[in-house]
Amino acid sequence: MGLIGLGRLGRVYARDLARLIPETQLTAVADTIPDLASRVAAEFGVPHSYVDPFALLDDPSVDAVVVVTPTHTHAEVVVAALDRGKPTFCEKPPALNLDEALAMQSAASRTGVPLQIGFMRRFDAGYAAAKRHIEDGAIGKVVVFKSSSRDPFPPSVEYANPRSSGGLIVDMGIHDIDLARWFMGEVRTAHAIGGTLAYPELGAVGDIDNAVVTLQFEDGRLGVVDLTRNGIYGYDITTELLGTAGTLRVGYLRETPLLVMTARGVTHDTVPYFMERFEKAYVTQLQDFARAILAGRAPSVTIDDGIKALNICLAATRSRESGRPVDVVSPQASVH
Amino acid sequence: MGLIGLGRLGRVYARDLARLIPETQLTAVADTIPDLASRVAAEFGVPHSYVDPFALLDDPSVDAVVVVTPTHTHAEVVVAALDRGKPTFCEKPPALNLDEALAMQSAASRTGVPLQIGFMRRFDAGYAAAKRHIEDGAIGKVVVFKSSSRDPFPPSVEYANPRSSGGLIVDMGIHDIDLARWFMGEVRTAHAIGGTLAYPELGAVGDIDNAVVTLQFEDGRLGVVDLTRNGIYGYDITTELLGTAGTLRVGYLRETPLLVMTARGVTHDTVPYFMERFEKAYVTQLQDFARAILAGRAPSVTIDDGIKALNICLAATRSRESGRPVDVVSPQASVH
Amino acid sequence: MGLIGLGRLGRVYARDLARLIPETQLTAVADTIPDLASRVAAEFGVPHSYVDPFALLDDPSVDAVVVVTPTHTHAEVVVAALDRGKPTFCEKPPALNLDEALAMQSAASRTGVPLQIGFMRRFDAGYAAAKRHIEDGAIGKVVVFKSSSRDPFPPSVEYANPRSSGGLIVDMGIHDIDLARWFMGEVRTAHAIGGTLAYPELGAVGDIDNAVVTLQFEDGRLGVVDLTRNGIYGYDITTELLGTAGTLRVGYLRETPLLVMTARGVTHDTVPYFMERFEKAYVTQLQDFARAILAGRAPSVTIDDGIKALNICLAATRSRESGRPVDVVSPQASVH
Amino acid sequence: MGLIGLGRLGRVYARDLARLIPETQLTAVADTIPDLASRVAAEFGVPHSYVDPFALLDDPSVDAVVVVTPTHTHAEVVVAALDRGKPTFCEKPPALNLDEALAMQSAASRTGVPLQIGFMRRFDAGYAAAKRHIEDGAIGKVVVFKSSSRDPFPPSVEYANPRSSGGLIVDMGIHDIDLARWFMGEVRTAHAIGGTLAYPELGAVGDIDNAVVTLQFEDGRLGVVDLTRNGIYGYDITTELLGTAGTLRVGYLRETPLLVMTARGVTHDTVPYFMERFEKAYVTQLQDFARAILAGRAPSVTIDDGIKALNICLAATRSRESGRPVDVVSPQASVH
Repeated sequence: MGLIGLGRLGRVYARDLARLIPETQLTAVADTIPDLASRVAAEFGVPHSYVDPFALLDDPSVDAVVVVTPTHTHAEVVVAALDRGKPTFCEKPPALNLDEALAMQSAASRTGVPLQIGFMRRFDAGYAAAKRHIEDGAIGKVVVFKSSSRDPFPPSVEYANPRSSGGLIVDMGIHDIDLARWFMGEVRTAHAIGGTLAYPELGAVGDIDNAVVTLQFEDGRLGVVDLTRNGIYGYDITTELLGTAGTLRVGYLRETPLLVMTARGVTHDTVPYFMERFEKAYVTQLQDFARAILAGRAPSVTIDDGIKALNICLAATRSRESGRPVDVVSPQASVH
Repeated sequence: MGLIGLGRLGRVYARDLARLIPETQLTAVADTIPDLASRVAAEFGVPHSYVDPFALLDDPSVDAVVVVTPTHTHAEVVVAALDRGKPTFCEKPPALNLDEALAMQSAASRTGVPLQIGFMRRFDAGYAAAKRHIEDGAIGKVVVFKSSSRDPFPPSVEYANPRSSGGLIVDMGIHDIDLARWFMGEVRTAHAIGGTLAYPELGAVGDIDNAVVTLQFEDGRLGVVDLTRNGIYGYDITTELLGTAGTLRVGYLRETPLLVMTARGVTHDTVPYFMERFEKAYVTQLQDFARAILAGRAPSVTIDDGIKALNICLAATRSRESGRPVDVVSPQASVH
Repeated sequence: MGLIGLGRLGRVYARDLARLIPETQLTAVADTIPDLASRVAAEFGVPHSYVDPFALLDDPSVDAVVVVTPTHTHAEVVVAALDRGKPTFCEKPPALNLDEALAMQSAASRTGVPLQIGFMRRFDAGYAAAKRHIEDGAIGKVVVFKSSSRDPFPPSVEYANPRSSGGLIVDMGIHDIDLARWFMGEVRTAHAIGGTLAYPELGAVGDIDNAVVTLQFEDGRLGVVDLTRNGIYGYDITTELLGTAGTLRVGYLRETPLLVMTARGVTHDTVPYFMERFEKAYVTQLQDFARAILAGRAPSVTIDDGIKALNICLAATRSRESGRPVDVVSPQASVH
Repeated sequence: MGLIGLGRLGRVYARDLARLIPETQLTAVADTIPDLASRVAAEFGVPHSYVDPFALLDDPSVDAVVVVTPTHTHAEVVVAALDRGKPTFCEKPPALNLDEALAMQSAASRTGVPLQIGFMRRFDAGYAAAKRHIEDGAIGKVVVFKSSSRDPFPPSVEYANPRSSGGLIVDMGIHDIDLARWFMGEVRTAHAIGGTLAYPELGAVGDIDNAVVTLQFEDGRLGVVDLTRNGIYGYDITTELLGTAGTLRVGYLRETPLLVMTARGVTHDTVPYFMERFEKAYVTQLQDFARAILAGRAPSVTIDDGIKALNICLAATRSRESGRPVDVVSPQASVH
């Protein structure tokens, strides 16, 4: 396996691929920052390291590629990997605009090489169990999807700039939107409200810090997603499936199994951030990718999933800007 | 105190006024159903009983009136009570349309007689504590209001008919909307989606059983309310105030302090319905009304509160029907 | 109903008997503190008030008596009531020594007049539900009984003096010991350790503030009770029934349905004290007493229950003092 | 690092040492079961494998040894490792009798080679946080230690036989007893009750399945530990530290972050078994051992800790058999 992009998440993937996943051997890492790849290679015993991602793609020891580069570079790297016949895993979101995402789709389609998108929540034990309970009929027909994502602190203004992040709804909401599709099916209309209410510096670069997105699915069922950058108390990801015979809630808040009980009340801590909350989901996701390739089966999460989730996020973003609900038109229809 | 209307909630009020609230003496009850008032009078030792509500209003032993009649009769009874100079408590919603609510407001204004509206959640210990925490600055500035109301089973189709209930958003949502105003201030725009997803029979009379309402407050802050009739697992009322320095959650699910732990997991029960959840809030509310009258202070919750909450619910109902956000125009401007 | 003893709990009983329990009419109250009975009578509209408890017993309007006087006076008042043929409810513990308790038992037996002892936890919804679950076989055979009682602050040294309170294990533990018998049956051996670890002033009057009591039931099953006066975080009463097919836990900690979530963690409040925790159990208990009398059925909790629980507490107290396990010998055999 | 013993826990240690702990390189594995070591070596890329544990001890690539063999073999293997100058980690309990444990202590003392005992709960994030909170004074002086260990199913009768397991109190309770010493200090007296109440087949080989152990510490403070093999609902490890200014509780029950909410109540799952509950503690423990060796510092948990905990468990076992409290006499005095 080759790994391109060694930022914070990239280094976690390096550890996972090198150590935790028996199915994979990490043979090459690449990052455009000088020396970074060689340092990571030394730390995890990886034979080859590159500054040039495309050099890694040409490394014959690399049977498949994991791409964790900045989002605006996904399309170029992924298309190059697919053109070389290397099964590719691409971190979410697939791209910041539909054109690039559709180019990735075309390459996957043209080459027939597998391309998996990193919607890791599907691999979390809680979400997976919820899916099984629904399939088993435990809560009847699901009629409302409700999801909430909260970061414990704001991103840097550089990161938050919508030109690189896509803005709050794309950057943060795409996970919830993917879950919405996974649990409920396709979305007909999106409406969003939002604002820069807690961190004015984010407004200065054009981003918002809070949003509420409502979704009406094609069959009339309902969805709502709320997003915030000021989840001060901890990283909090919660999803609820309200059904005609019961309800499922996925999410938890406690990190340490300790309760502190004093005259001021009973207090527990919270999950620090996404790495802690989804540590196992990230491993399971890469393992699933590796197993899909080894077994010759299609990826669990495809570029179509990436495009459709992105398309809904973009519709919601436009709704937030215009103040009006936006119909979610199939992206294939909207571009060439 | 005189009590008009002896349905389920009316009988609870009879018990509360007769037994639990030291400040009040229940001297008269009335209900148009023959014999009902006399039976309730006998049960609680009330001296006078009436079939005609207006006869009760003329009873000289009655210093103040509690009105728990069907909503469409509120305006007539309340205006008559105010005209007789009797301080009046009126169950929520004040009316099903703004004209009637505005007539109640005019009567209160013209006579100067106190009129309190029954938004009892403000008197729940949890909501009251949340209000104090916010005033104490415990969570900084509140930027998102999030509330959920769930009934454990659907109403009868007779009850649910929007001509008598006002429809889901008025009937059920007005409590959450009142909390929204109480915690956040005035609403600028409402948007709603909804549908009849669980109980088709409700659709046959023109009602929906699930809705999601988003609110943008006048200062740009955000709100979202979800409502359902299929909260199968129990009566579940939850409100969250997301602030810049912390978050408050009001709500609880357990009724009996018992955990059943078997190989099938750890299970607890839930709150059966609103009487159990808000039993004390109902008592505190009537006590607050009695104390306001005795102390000569203005009611804690006024007909203005009732009109504004109703107006937002009606705007959200129109939004749900039209598919478009609706600006919440001050009702005084929109009529006469 | 007549009520003797108007301390803190007595006044709550006055309110309950006067207002909350439809089956009862409170016609007389008595307390040896001058004016106290007349003031309480005025507050709750009680026709007769007495300084002399025995005068109340002779009041013909009194059909039954509730005794909430200091424990060392129980025997004299209760025997006098029974001798006058008045069904009697006596607050726990029945007495501080077995001789007095056995005298009460003799009087009940001799007169055939009902005598109920105030083990109110049996009337708590949680404990009652646990009992039903066990009878329904939900957890198989119960093999371990585990209970914990914690006061949020220490009693006054006057109260705590074992000469009036009986000491920690009698005063506080008798509720848990009664539950042990109710759920498990008779006790063969008790062993206790304890000490004055938090409040040295309690040690000065001969009491301890923490204890752990182990019980072996006659059939070999196990029990453990821990007691503390330094439950600083709130009033906490928890009981667990560990069975061969599952486990039940009774208890809860939250008072207000509010979570405060900040960077310091997620905090909830706790139950202040026994009145808040068992408010409804006290009402249900008196209602059960009234219904038993009206229906002519035997009391739910008898003086035999009181004697057996007291006997186990006294055995555990001796064990704590001697450092050795103590066999629980039937009290009838040990006296007379 | 060399690893001896490749049963269930041994294979987890193999994975941890080979993959998760950057400080270690697993160069040799040994197990007396033919082929097992070579298979594990192949799975984790370990260069050397042995059937004879003593051959592994002579392998020059082995700088330190982890011993996870059956308890009755610990002493022989550990002494041999220490005599060869190899720092040794030995799984708990150190031995089944004090003679063997003291022999290990002598070897460690004589050779000056580090010997660490596997009380892994000390490395769990919850227990570690509790320790810090106590040291920070968050709950004042701790006066009661309360701990509970529950297995979700019984062991095989072969395993449970006290001749190999030491019996319930040694086999299962030694973790709680170690925590008792770690948090509270030395124990003066132990008393235990217990029985074979759920699984008669365990009684047939001389073991019990439930026990309650009370401890009085040298300074008079209190402790209680309850142990069961019939924690049917899941693996449940809970410890409470009751202090003069607050209380700490360590423990959690949920495995998947999913709540299933239906008309039957609100249900969550539980932790399956010790591997899931303490997965990270096991890794942290081995990492701590490796770091201690590399840094030349003394082990965090010594053979003295092992001997003292074992000694208390043996005293409690004798108390359970005799029905009397047993003084915990320093083991050095009692032998040799």
